[in-house]
Amino acid sequence: MSTQESQAPSAASTPILDPTAGPVALTRQLCNIPSVSGDECAIADAVEAMLRSHAPHLVISRDGDTVIARTELGRERRVAIAGHLDTVPINDNLPVRDEVDPVTGEAIIWGRGTVDMKAGVAVQLALAVELVAPAVDLTWIWYDHEEVASDLSGLGRAMRNHPELFGADFAILGEPSNGTIEGGCNGTLRARVELHGTRAHSARSWMGVNAIHRASVILSRLAAYEAERVTVDGLEYREGMNAVRIDGGVAGNVIPDRCSIEVNYRFAPSRSADEAVEFVRTFFADADSVEIVDLSPGARPGLDAPLAQRFVAAVGAEPTAKLGWTDVSRFSALGIPAVNFGPGNALLAHADDERVPVAQIESSFAALHAWLSASQEPPVK
Amino acid sequence: MSTQESQAPSAASTPILDPTAGPVALTRQLCNIPSVSGDECAIADAVEAMLRSHAPHLVISRDGDTVIARTELGRERRVAIAGHLDTVPINDNLPVRDEVDPVTGEAIIWGRGTVDMKAGVAVQLALAVELVAPAVDLTWIWYDHEEVASDLSGLGRAMRNHPELFGADFAILGEPSNGTIEGGCNGTLRARVELHGTRAHSARSWMGVNAIHRASVILSRLAAYEAERVTVDGLEYREGMNAVRIDGGVAGNVIPDRCSIEVNYRFAPSRSADEAVEFVRTFFADADSVEIVDLSPGARPGLDAPLAQRFVAAVGAEPTAKLGWTDVSRFSALGIPAVNFGPGNALLAHADDERVPVAQIESSFAALHAWLSASQEPPVK
Repeated sequence: MSTQESQAPSAASTPILDPTAGPVALTRQLCNIPSVSGDECAIADAVEAMLRSHAPHLVISRDGDTVIARTELGRERRVAIAGHLDTVPINDNLPVRDEVDPVTGEAIIWGRGTVDMKAGVAVQLALAVELVAPAVDLTWIWYDHEEVASDLSGLGRAMRNHPELFGADFAILGEPSNGTIEGGCNGTLRARVELHGTRAHSARSWMGVNAIHRASVILSRLAAYEAERVTVDGLEYREGMNAVRIDGGVAGNVIPDRCSIEVNYRFAPSRSADEAVEFVRTFFADADSVEIVDLSPGARPGLDAPLAQRFVAAVGAEPTAKLGWTDVSRFSALGIPAVNFGPGNALLAHADDERVPVAQIESSFAALHAWLSASQEPPVK
Repeated sequence: MSTQESQAPSAASTPILDPTAGPVALTRQLCNIPSVSGDECAIADAVEAMLRSHAPHLVISRDGDTVIARTELGRERRVAIAGHLDTVPINDNLPVRDEVDPVTGEAIIWGRGTVDMKAGVAVQLALAVELVAPAVDLTWIWYDHEEVASDLSGLGRAMRNHPELFGADFAILGEPSNGTIEGGCNGTLRARVELHGTRAHSARSWMGVNAIHRASVILSRLAAYEAERVTVDGLEYREGMNAVRIDGGVAGNVIPDRCSIEVNYRFAPSRSADEAVEFVRTFFADADSVEIVDLSPGARPGLDAPLAQRFVAAVGAEPTAKLGWTDVSRFSALGIPAVNFGPGNALLAHADDERVPVAQIESSFAALHAWLSASQEPPVK
């Protein structure tokens, strides 16, 4: 689709989102629109319709199922704030329910998407409507296809299609971070490591070379490997090197001539993508082939930017390192410092008992609201 | 179908086999009837039709695509002689061709099934027609589904359905043995060995337990294991213990909670099936589960039987151990000593350049002919 303003989707077919009810109610409304990756049209339509009804101060663009809404106030600085609209598959955990956490006694919203990341999107949508005159110009981005292969990302696609919309001085991604700031992210690389052998009938196994047996050397090295902890800009990033898939064999009576191991390497943002590739190729130098099948660089924390320092002060808690790869690295690749900030515990993302504390939705909203209303002030020390 | 004599299949739809042309011509004719496992109806019909036309001295039974033909001469002893009708899949190697082996200069027949085991079946069919008054009563068995899972075997099925047809003092299986006697066979066992772990997001791998990494201990033990050589009744059986399949993994960003290794253990006929199971369970005692998915006991050579000794003399070459599992163990399980004897090199079985020397077809025919015509004589020392 074009980036020009298009007609609002028809109200008849579009679920209604009500931003005036606040971010907690919006969280419930967003979760209850099923939006598994690849099926984000309904929720993107709902978001676009809501903005067109309630936020006439925003210039709205659409790219596939990604919605981009910008203030154009001529402020000195611009902040991009993004969240993905999709979820992993539903597993009997929709519609969401209001519950009390049996351990903490907190009020929670339980169900798919509450953590990853409808609560974050709800905070953003409520602010997008409410902040008609923020202290900085804002670029709001709600995008599709985050929970699938990196090359399908709606954010990546929109950045390629419309680079002119993405200029900013700082970016915030609403990934769950317990309402604290998680700086940067580890990079991630997946490689297919292959061992070869020679087929033979298994009754005469000494005439062949067993490729699965050859994999034992690789797997032993992986099992023994202790991943590093790397401090980058004051935050500690913990790495990881793991076999995530293995496959080999021809038939029950054949010595196998091939074994394939898929490895996932999570690397600190102090390593470049090229350095990560080199490390993996050296680590598996005795394999018959090493093919890089997926590679996403990490992002440094970016907390040295003045805007970021003011945000840290507004949140009021110590920033930590983000370990999982997130789309902050897409902003980082455009030269835009970026952090993760959203309600919810990332350890519950994708879990069937995904649940978000109501208080975190409210505190995240309050911190962002305070910062965006006053971000021209000098940093609090 | 019943074991009573049935109507001959209609000539119009049945390929014609001509036993009067001798075993070499019959080999070509049999090979050129495609008969991959599960598709043996045409060849079984052709065999049955040929016997009804050319061998009125035989009492013919049929069980599915297995044909059984018996003399009923009231002889003191009975010999069962069996061969399977199916082949592994064709791979651009039919119809068969007459060639000269570039290495040995021998006349050969080249193509799928020549070795495993249409040449052996051809020798048997030619003898079944010619030997109207053999020195022993004969039970000829040509059966389906040998090249697939053991529980599909047409021989096993026919033995279960019609045990009364299978009594014998000795048995010969026409598996390729270079025209020499290969005694008994190794047993074979397949086991599924599972390792468990705990899923986690691969960005926080230390929160999970990687089941594929755990498999390294099992695979290292397999890679280091030196299979035994066991002498049984004077013949040396070489064993084997191999991973033949491996499978594990959930997704590219998940620490896998399961890895499954399929192991094939080939064990000497001095070990019982129970002993083999015990050995495997002990070998993999540190796995989370060991499931026996296939188990076929071996067969001792059986060369101490007087009939066998006379057969050894007629063949005139030193018997050796059969390493692969064969259906001799089905006769062994019925208490019938059994050996493998057929033209062709077993190392070429299933190979795309499968080929049998014409001279071996003729010598195998001659040896069996001599023995069956005179097997009541005292053993030659």
